[in-house]
Amino acid sequence: MNSPVRLGIVGLGNMGNSHAQQILQGKVPRMDLGAVCDTNPEMLKRCANTPGFASHQEMLASGKIDAVLVATPHYDHTTIGINAIAAGIHTLIEKPLSVHKADCQKLIAAYEKRSRKDLVFAEMFNQRTDPRYRKLRDLLQSGELGEIRRVNWIITDWYRTEAYYSSGGWRATWAGEGGGVLMNQCPHQLDLMQWMFGLPKKVRAHCQFGKWHDIEVEDACTAYLEYANGATGVFITTTGEAPGTNRLEVATDRGRVVVEGDGLQWTRNAVPTSEHLKTSKNGFGTPERWEVKIPTSGWGGQHNEVLQNFADAILDGKALIGPAVDGINGVELGNAMLMSTLWDRTVELPLDAAQVSAEYSKLIAKSRHKKQQTAAASSSDFANSTKGLAK
Amino acid sequence: MNSPVRLGIVGLGNMGNSHAQQILQGKVPRMDLGAVCDTNPEMLKRCANTPGFASHQEMLASGKIDAVLVATPHYDHTTIGINAIAAGIHTLIEKPLSVHKADCQKLIAAYEKRSRKDLVFAEMFNQRTDPRYRKLRDLLQSGELGEIRRVNWIITDWYRTEAYYSSGGWRATWAGEGGGVLMNQCPHQLDLMQWMFGLPKKVRAHCQFGKWHDIEVEDACTAYLEYANGATGVFITTTGEAPGTNRLEVATDRGRVVVEGDGLQWTRNAVPTSEHLKTSKNGFGTPERWEVKIPTSGWGGQHNEVLQNFADAILDGKALIGPAVDGINGVELGNAMLMSTLWDRTVELPLDAAQVSAEYSKLIAKSRHKKQQTAAASSSDFANSTKGLAK
Repeated sequence: MNSPVRLGIVGLGNMGNSHAQQILQGKVPRMDLGAVCDTNPEMLKRCANTPGFASHQEMLASGKIDAVLVATPHYDHTTIGINAIAAGIHTLIEKPLSVHKADCQKLIAAYEKRSRKDLVFAEMFNQRTDPRYRKLRDLLQSGELGEIRRVNWIITDWYRTEAYYSSGGWRATWAGEGGGVLMNQCPHQLDLMQWMFGLPKKVRAHCQFGKWHDIEVEDACTAYLEYANGATGVFITTTGEAPGTNRLEVATDRGRVVVEGDGLQWTRNAVPTSEHLKTSKNGFGTPERWEVKIPTSGWGGQHNEVLQNFADAILDGKALIGPAVDGINGVELGNAMLMSTLWDRTVELPLDAAQVSAEYSKLIAKSRHKKQQTAAASSSDFANSTKGLAK
Repeated sequence: MNSPVRLGIVGLGNMGNSHAQQILQGKVPRMDLGAVCDTNPEMLKRCANTPGFASHQEMLASGKIDAVLVATPHYDHTTIGINAIAAGIHTLIEKPLSVHKADCQKLIAAYEKRSRKDLVFAEMFNQRTDPRYRKLRDLLQSGELGEIRRVNWIITDWYRTEAYYSSGGWRATWAGEGGGVLMNQCPHQLDLMQWMFGLPKKVRAHCQFGKWHDIEVEDACTAYLEYANGATGVFITTTGEAPGTNRLEVATDRGRVVVEGDGLQWTRNAVPTSEHLKTSKNGFGTPERWEVKIPTSGWGGQHNEVLQNFADAILDGKALIGPAVDGINGVELGNAMLMSTLWDRTVELPLDAAQVSAEYSKLIAKSRHKKQQTAAASSSDFANSTKGLAK
C-alpha cells in the first residue's frame, strides 16, 4: 500500500475543494491529493497543479489514486461510489450516503460483493468527532445514564436565505438534490441520533415544503419518534429560523443531559427515576438531584479527523469513525420523516426500500428541476457542511 | 354588595383547604371565608370555626356567602358551577373549567343565561400571574417580537410517584378525574398556550396511557400543533420524568425568546428574519443578533392574587385575570390532544363537542373507577396545583 495515501476527489464544489485545499496544505498526515475530477473545467482550476479529470471513471482507472472522496450532488453518490468500489479504490462518501434507502442498499451491496476484502468504505460523518456527542454516547453505552426515556433535538440553526437556494438550479429540488433540510443540512444530526439512540420503531413527522423559501422541498420538519423500549423523541429542524437553536436534551433513568453550547450539563438523579417512582412513599417528591457539568474541549477534528482516520484505516486497518454501511440508518430516518408526511400517517421502521424509491420517482417526475442538468451544475455550489456546529 | 366578600369553598381537599387557610390567615384583602362544604365530614374539621355544609346547594342558599370557589373533582365543576350561577352567587372554578368541551359549553351557557348581569365568573388561572408569561404575552401583543414562527414547550417537571396515583381511588381514572397529566397538571400550560399564542388549527398528538405508572389515563403526551399563520408548535409533558424540564421557546420574526428559570432571554434579530431571508445577498449569513435579558421579579401572586382579583371584580368591577369563559380554550386544546391519540390522526379545531363527549362516555364506561364512588373520595386528595412553578 502506498504511503501517503493518494486521494482523488470527485466534485470540486465548496466541500470537495475545501477538502482538497486542506490536503494540499498538509493538514492531513499520510494523505496526498493524487487527482481531482469535475465535469466543469472551471472547477478543476481550483487545483491547477493536481492532475484533473472530467470523468470519474478515468480518474479511478488512472493509477494516480488509491482512494476516492465523493463530494458530488447526492444522487451521484450511489453510481460513483459503486464504480469506485468496483475499481478496488478505497471510498469515502460525503453525507448523505445516498438520497434514499434503496440507493444505500445498492451501494452497500456493491461493497459486500467487493473483490478486494481490505477495501475501506467510509462516510464523512465529521460531527461524530465532536467530543460532546462522543461523551454522551459513551455515557449511554456504559450504562451510566440508565435507560433512555425521552430525547428532544431542536436543531433549527441551519438558517439559509433565499439567495442560498437560488444559487444553484439543482439545489432544493427533488430531481437535483433529492430533498431539503433533511437531505442537505441534517444528515449529521440524523446520523448522530441513530448513533447515540438507535433507530426508532415508529416515526410521525410533519415536513413543510417551501414554507419559508421558494423551493419545492422541505425547509421545516417536526418529527415524533417512538423507540423499541418505549422512549419517545422529537426532532425539529428548519432553514427558516434565525437565530435558531441547537439543543439536544436526553431524559434517562438517571436524570437529564442537555447538550447546548460547551460541554454537557447532566442533572443527575441520586436514585434512578424508575426506582424512586415505584418506592417513594411521597406523592410529590423527586429524587435528590446533583448538577454535574461534564467538560469537553473544542468541537473535535471534524473533516480533517475523518480524512486522517480514513488514511489510518487504509494504511493500518484502524477502525473507522464513520463506516459507510452505517450511513443507511440516518438516510432511513430522514426518509421516514418524508414518507410519514407524504402518507399522512405514522410509519414503522424498517421501511420498504422499494416503496420509498417509488415515492421519490413520483417527486422527481413533478420536480421543477430537470435531472439531466444536474451534472453540469453539480459541484459549483455545494453546501458548506461545517455549518451547524455549535456557535 | 358586602365588603369583604364572603366566600364559600366547595371541596376541602388539598387545594380547597389551602385557599381556605390563606383566607382565614387574612392573606386575601376584602375576602372572608363565609362557609365551607365537603361531602366528607372529616374534611370539614379542617375549618372547624367556619359554618360547614355537606351539600353545596344548601351552602349556596344559606345566605352566608356572596361567592363560591369550586375545588372539587373535575366532573363536578360543571354541575356545581351551574348551580352556583343559577343561585346568583359569584363563581370561581378551579382548573380545569370542565373535563371536556361540551361540559364547558354547558357552564358558559348557564353564565350567558344568568339573571344577575353583574355576576362574576372566573377561573383559577394562577399561572397567568407569573410575570414571565405576562411579559412574553405583552411583547407578542405589542408587535415587538413580530409574528410567531415556532413554539416549543417542554413541561416535563410534573413528576409524580406511584404513591401519588394510589392515594385516591378517583385519581387518574376516566370516570373519576377524566384524564391524567393533561387534565390534572397541564391545564395551566394549556391555558397559557392559548392565552399567549391563540389556539392552533390542527393538533397531532401522541398520548401514552399508563406509560410510567399503573394508571388508565395518559401520563405522557407529545403534541404537534399548527397555527393559522403557519407557525408550528410542540408541547411535551409527562409525570414520569425526573428532574424534568420546564422550558418554553418561542421563535418569532424578531428572534427567539426562551423562558426557563428567571426572566426571559431574547436573542433579538436586528433585522426581521423574513426581511433578511428575502433580501440578503449572502446564502449563509444570519441577521445581526443581540442578547437581551429581560428581567422579571418572582413568580407573581399566584392563587392569592387570583382570589384578590376575584374580590376586586365583585366589589369594583375590575377586569378578571382569568375569565371562566376563556377556560374552554385550554380544555379544547387538551381534548384535541386526547382525541388525536384515540383517533390516530390529525384533528382540526374547533372540535365537535358532542363527538368528544361521546368519546369520554366510552372511556368512562370502561374505566376501572366507578363513577358513583367519586363524591365520597372526592376532595380528600386534591392535587397541589402550585407545583409546576419554576424552581
